Amino acid sequence: MSTAAYELFYWPGIQGRGEFVRLALEEAGASYVDVARLPKDQGGGVDPIRRILETAGGRHFAPPVLAYRGGAAGDLVIGQTACILDFLATRHAELLPDPSLRHAALELQLTFADFIGEAHDTHHPISSALYYEDQKAEAKRRSDGFLRARVPRFLGHFEAVIRDNAASSSSSLLGAGFSYVDLTAFQVMSGLAYAFPNAYARNSDDVPLLVALKERVASRPRIAAYLASSRRLPFSQHGLFRHYPELDLSEGPRR
Amino acid sequence: MSTAAYELFYWPGIQGRGEFVRLALEEAGASYVDVARLPKDQGGGVDPIRRILETAGGRHFAPPVLAYRGGAAGDLVIGQTACILDFLATRHAELLPDPSLRHAALELQLTFADFIGEAHDTHHPISSALYYEDQKAEAKRRSDGFLRARVPRFLGHFEAVIRDNAASSSSSLLGAGFSYVDLTAFQVMSGLAYAFPNAYARNSDDVPLLVALKERVASRPRIAAYLASSRRLPFSQHGLFRHYPELDLSEGPRR
Repeated sequence: MSTAAYELFYWPGIQGRGEFVRLALEEAGASYVDVARLPKDQGGGVDPIRRILETAGGRHFAPPVLAYRGGAAGDLVIGQTACILDFLATRHAELLPDPSLRHAALELQLTFADFIGEAHDTHHPISSALYYEDQKAEAKRRSDGFLRARVPRFLGHFEAVIRDNAASSSSSLLGAGFSYVDLTAFQVMSGLAYAFPNAYARNSDDVPLLVALKERVASRPRIAAYLASSRRLPFSQHGLFRHYPELDLSEGPRR
Repeated sequence: MSTAAYELFYWPGIQGRGEFVRLALEEAGASYVDVARLPKDQGGGVDPIRRILETAGGRHFAPPVLAYRGGAAGDLVIGQTACILDFLATRHAELLPDPSLRHAALELQLTFADFIGEAHDTHHPISSALYYEDQKAEAKRRSDGFLRARVPRFLGHFEAVIRDNAASSSSSLLGAGFSYVDLTAFQVMSGLAYAFPNAYARNSDDVPLLVALKERVASRPRIAAYLASSRRLPFSQHGLFRHYPELDLSEGPRR
């Protein structure tokens, strides 16, 4: 098939959880194919996703799934976003400056994953199998709690982590400097700004280091090139972060 | 303080997410202190949890947190259940028979974590800050979708993984044999049986290998000794898995 080192299997039309993997692959300068986004006659579409999920002896519950072809131990096929990022960090020093911080990075990534799960459930608090329109009232109640209590708590935690590091030398989430977790922070902050512009504006003043980190990540050369390319899909009403104005806070910044 | 190799920081009255770590420590035969369960005058209670979460330069979002004292690189303090288990597996071969399967184990653990998150949200679909009684109607709707669609899908996935392995030599979730992921499967299946006895009975026939795995784990010598000890807390209405009969399916087994 392809000669790229990596094949990413993720839904072709959305950023979703696949975006955390795309950002890492881009920052690492890795050669990869976003399989489902290929034309159908070149092996694209959702069929290859279904096939890789249901491979006997190598099943995965859901995308994203990353295949690494040509390792010394043969093909390696991995699911679960945080697991994929942990694996990529073992192969690309750009993503983790100090291997002894592997668990510190994974812990932060999993805390972001918890936050992302809660962000998703603001628009689907009852069931992912139902339309948003069938759970709008519940979505509004869940969003209120998320935006008023959980967003400040999560962002405050990440801000405090960066502040601790800034006291020494790093203005990143890891004390040793830039890592894949900063890419995740960028994506999460971008998603919040898209989905909940009022709540984002209201919280930004309290987390200046996190906002600065988001902007610094966006201007990293490989990330800036990626964001300006057609490989970067737009946010939309089909991903993790969805903009339903009625779910946002009605007030903007506190100023 | 203590001379144990590990200190576990987790809410003292519940199994919760801490139980996955307790099971791994017990299976490894590790020496550990369940800090918050010590008497207050011996440093127990929830204060040490709060302190370890808010340590500048080493913050954690939530328990469980595991401290490993006396490693060559100094103290290591880790949060996030799956991250803690991944770390323990690097130190105790009992928990992971083949280190090259680290990512396969982590992926499965994270899929269980997703399932556990959904199980929790059946009784708290709107907000963890509200009482169950304030979200009962929403909890019923969410539980229906969880029990009718998500439980069969998750359990079916794990069953298929075991079935693939059984075709070769293992009847565990990893092809190489018993690992910490099997302990997690035991705990999740036990939690489902406690919280949703009708739904559990209804699904059991479809996942015989998973049910057999649960029973095999319970009879492992160290796990059996742990389950019979006072260190094992009971399931209750305060943990991840809660038994509210009105949330369960009304039918039992299909027979």
